[in-house]
Amino acid sequence: MNSGIITILTDFGTRDGYVGSCKGVIKQMAPHVEITDISHDIPAFDIEAAALALYNYYEYFPKGTIHLAIVDPGVGSDRQALILRTAGYTFVGPDNGLFHLIMENEAHTLYAIDKDVFLKGVKHATFHGRDLFAPAAARLALGHAPASFARQLPQRTDHGLRPFRKNNDGHIVVPVMSVDHFGNIIFAFNRQDLERMHMPRIKSIGFKGERIGGLVKYYSAEEPGRLLALWNSRDFLEIAVNGGNAARELQVDPGKDTLILEVE
Amino acid sequence: MNSGIITILTDFGTRDGYVGSCKGVIKQMAPHVEITDISHDIPAFDIEAAALALYNYYEYFPKGTIHLAIVDPGVGSDRQALILRTAGYTFVGPDNGLFHLIMENEAHTLYAIDKDVFLKGVKHATFHGRDLFAPAAARLALGHAPASFARQLPQRTDHGLRPFRKNNDGHIVVPVMSVDHFGNIIFAFNRQDLERMHMPRIKSIGFKGERIGGLVKYYSAEEPGRLLALWNSRDFLEIAVNGGNAARELQVDPGKDTLILEVE
Amino acid sequence: MNSGIITILTDFGTRDGYVGSCKGVIKQMAPHVEITDISHDIPAFDIEAAALALYNYYEYFPKGTIHLAIVDPGVGSDRQALILRTAGYTFVGPDNGLFHLIMENEAHTLYAIDKDVFLKGVKHATFHGRDLFAPAAARLALGHAPASFARQLPQRTDHGLRPFRKNNDGHIVVPVMSVDHFGNIIFAFNRQDLERMHMPRIKSIGFKGERIGGLVKYYSAEEPGRLLALWNSRDFLEIAVNGGNAARELQVDPGKDTLILEVE
Repeated sequence: MNSGIITILTDFGTRDGYVGSCKGVIKQMAPHVEITDISHDIPAFDIEAAALALYNYYEYFPKGTIHLAIVDPGVGSDRQALILRTAGYTFVGPDNGLFHLIMENEAHTLYAIDKDVFLKGVKHATFHGRDLFAPAAARLALGHAPASFARQLPQRTDHGLRPFRKNNDGHIVVPVMSVDHFGNIIFAFNRQDLERMHMPRIKSIGFKGERIGGLVKYYSAEEPGRLLALWNSRDFLEIAVNGGNAARELQVDPGKDTLILEVE
Repeated sequence: MNSGIITILTDFGTRDGYVGSCKGVIKQMAPHVEITDISHDIPAFDIEAAALALYNYYEYFPKGTIHLAIVDPGVGSDRQALILRTAGYTFVGPDNGLFHLIMENEAHTLYAIDKDVFLKGVKHATFHGRDLFAPAAARLALGHAPASFARQLPQRTDHGLRPFRKNNDGHIVVPVMSVDHFGNIIFAFNRQDLERMHMPRIKSIGFKGERIGGLVKYYSAEEPGRLLALWNSRDFLEIAVNGGNAARELQVDPGKDTLILEVE
Repeated sequence: MNSGIITILTDFGTRDGYVGSCKGVIKQMAPHVEITDISHDIPAFDIEAAALALYNYYEYFPKGTIHLAIVDPGVGSDRQALILRTAGYTFVGPDNGLFHLIMENEAHTLYAIDKDVFLKGVKHATFHGRDLFAPAAARLALGHAPASFARQLPQRTDHGLRPFRKNNDGHIVVPVMSVDHFGNIIFAFNRQDLERMHMPRIKSIGFKGERIGGLVKYYSAEEPGRLLALWNSRDFLEIAVNGGNAARELQVDPGKDTLILEVE
C-alpha cells in the first residue's frame, strides 16, 4: 500500500532553500516519489499549530501516503525521531507532540528511528529535516519496513492534549487550540465531545466578554462584521467574524483565553 | 483535450492544512493528475486580486488545463458554483466575479454545478474548496463532461468590471485594479483600450499629484527610485518605481485613487 | 544526464500569478518536466539572499537537475542572461551575482543566452522570467545543448563575493551574509576558511557588543533564550538564539554589522 506521495509540512519558510534541500534529498533517493507541499509557513517552533494542520489534511490523501512533518526546536538533542503508522498512513517527524491529534484519533504503531543509520558520519547536528527525516521518509517510500531502521515503542496513554474541563457552575471551559489564517479561532472541543456528554444542545457561548446565542451553519449566515460560532470543517468549535478577522478584533491571546460553554 | 494538470489558486494561506486537504481530495479521486500550485497568498476575500492573477497565468498553460480558483467569502450561501469553459481551458470556482476578466476576454460556456452531487450527506457548509470545488475539478480531469453534473447557464452581458471613463476635460479616469507583490500599481486600462480610441499616444499621466511624461519599456530604463509608467507584461497600464515600492511610496488606496490619462 | 526536474527560485511572490505563468510556459514547452518550487519569497531584489539559498539546496538534487533562479532588478536592460554548467547541474538566470557562490565553489562553464532566440517579436520587456528564462530552461530540459542558443563566455576570476579580512590586532572581521527565516545570522566565513588558516580553534566571537566563548553543536545545546554560535548545516558560521530570533533581538543591520573572530 503505497500512494507514491510524500507530503511535507514545516516551519522552515521557503526563502533559505532549507525546504529545497529536503526535496532534493527525497528525489535523489526516491526519484519516482511525488512530493506535495502542504505548508512551510507554520509559525516558527509552533508545534500545536502544525499538529492541527496535519490533522486537517492527513486523511484526505490516498491511502499509503507518507506525511513528513518537521517543526523541530529540539533538533540535535536526544529527542526521538518517530515513525507513526495508522491503518492508512505513515507519519515521520520529531517526538514533540506534533502527532498527538493523530494518536488520539486512531489506532497506531509507534517506532523510534535508529538515528545512526542516517547520521553516522554527518558532521552537522542542526538540520535533521535534511539529514534524518527526509531520508527516512524516502526510504519508507521505497518500500522499506519501519522495523528495518527503527524499533517499535510501547503504546502511550497520555498524548499531551490540552483538555477542556467543567467549572463549578457546570459550564465547560475550553482552551483555544489555534488561530487560523483567516483569524478564525479554533477550540479544543468537537462535535463528538458534545455527543459523548448526552447534552446535545449548546445554549450559549461566552468568550472575552462576548456572548453568542447559538451555532450557525456557515460564515455568511451571519451579518457581515458580526461574531458567530459554528462546527468547522473538521468538527471543532470555531468562533469567526463574517468577512472579518475574529482573533484580531477580539485581541485573542491563544495561551490564556478560554471559552465558556453552557450546554443543556 | 486534457493536459492532466489542475492548477490551484486560493486565499487560504497554507499553514492550516486547508489547501493540503483539497490536494488530497484531488489525488484520491484522480491519482494521475498533476497539481500545480499557483498561489495561496491572495489577500483574504480579495476577489479582484485573484481575478487579475488568474488572467496573468491561465493561457500560458497547456491547452486542456483545469484552473481551480477559490476565493469564496460566500461559502455555504446560495451563490452558485461555476464551471467556465473557453476554447482552451476549463475554470472551476464560486460565482462572485473571480472569472470576469476571462469572460470579458474570450468566448465561453458557463455551467452551474449541481451542488447536491457533491454535498449530499456532507454535514459541513464552510469548506466548499475541499467538499465541492476540488472534487468537481477532479471529476473534470477524469474526463466527465460538465453537463453530467452541471447545467448550462445563459450568456451574461455584464461581467462586473470596474470601467475607466472620460471626464469633462476629455481626459480618461482609470481606477486602480490591483497592487502587486513589488508594489507596482496596475490600472484597469490596457493597450487595446487605447488602440480602440484611435488616439494612440499618451501625452501625460497624473496620479496622486505626480505627473509622468510618457511610457518607458522596462523598470531600469528610469533612474533608481524614480516613478515610471509602462505597459506591463499583460498589457495593462502600470505605475512603478525602479528598485522601489510605488504603492508604499505613494500611499495608494486602491479603492479610492484614480489615474488621469491625457491622450492625443 | 537529465533528471527531468526544473527547480524554481524567485522573488516574485506567488499572489500575482507571475510564477504561475512561468510554470505554464515550461509545461507547455516540456510537458514531461517536473517543476519543483524552491521559493518565491526571496525579499524583493535581494540577490545576496537568493545566492545563498541556491547554494543551500542545489547539490542535494539528482544530477542533471536544472536550477532556474530569477531575481532580476535589471530586467529589460542589457544585463546578460546566463547558463552556468557544473559537473552535475545547470543553472539559468540573470547575470547579476546570483550564481557567485556556485562559481566560487565549483569548476563550471558559462554561457550568455542569445536573447533574440526568445525575445524576437515579444513586445514586453518587463518579464524575462516568463519570456526568456523559463523557455530557456525548458529547452535545456528537452535536451538542447547550451551552445545551440548561447555562446560560451571566458572564465571569470572575481565572483564578487564580500570577503572577510584581518584587522590590525590579527582578528578576523566577517560581514553578515544573510539572515534566515528563523532570524539566525549567517556569516561569510566557513569551516574550510578556518582550516586553510592552520589555526583551527575559535577562541572567541564578538558581535554587537556580545561575546561568545566558543561553538556549540546544535541550538538546544544552549539554554533557551541564550545567544550561541555554531557551524551551520552548510558549514557557515552562524549566530542564533535557542528558541528565539537572534537578528531581531540584536537588531542586526546586515549591510553594516561585522563579527570579530579571535582564532588561535
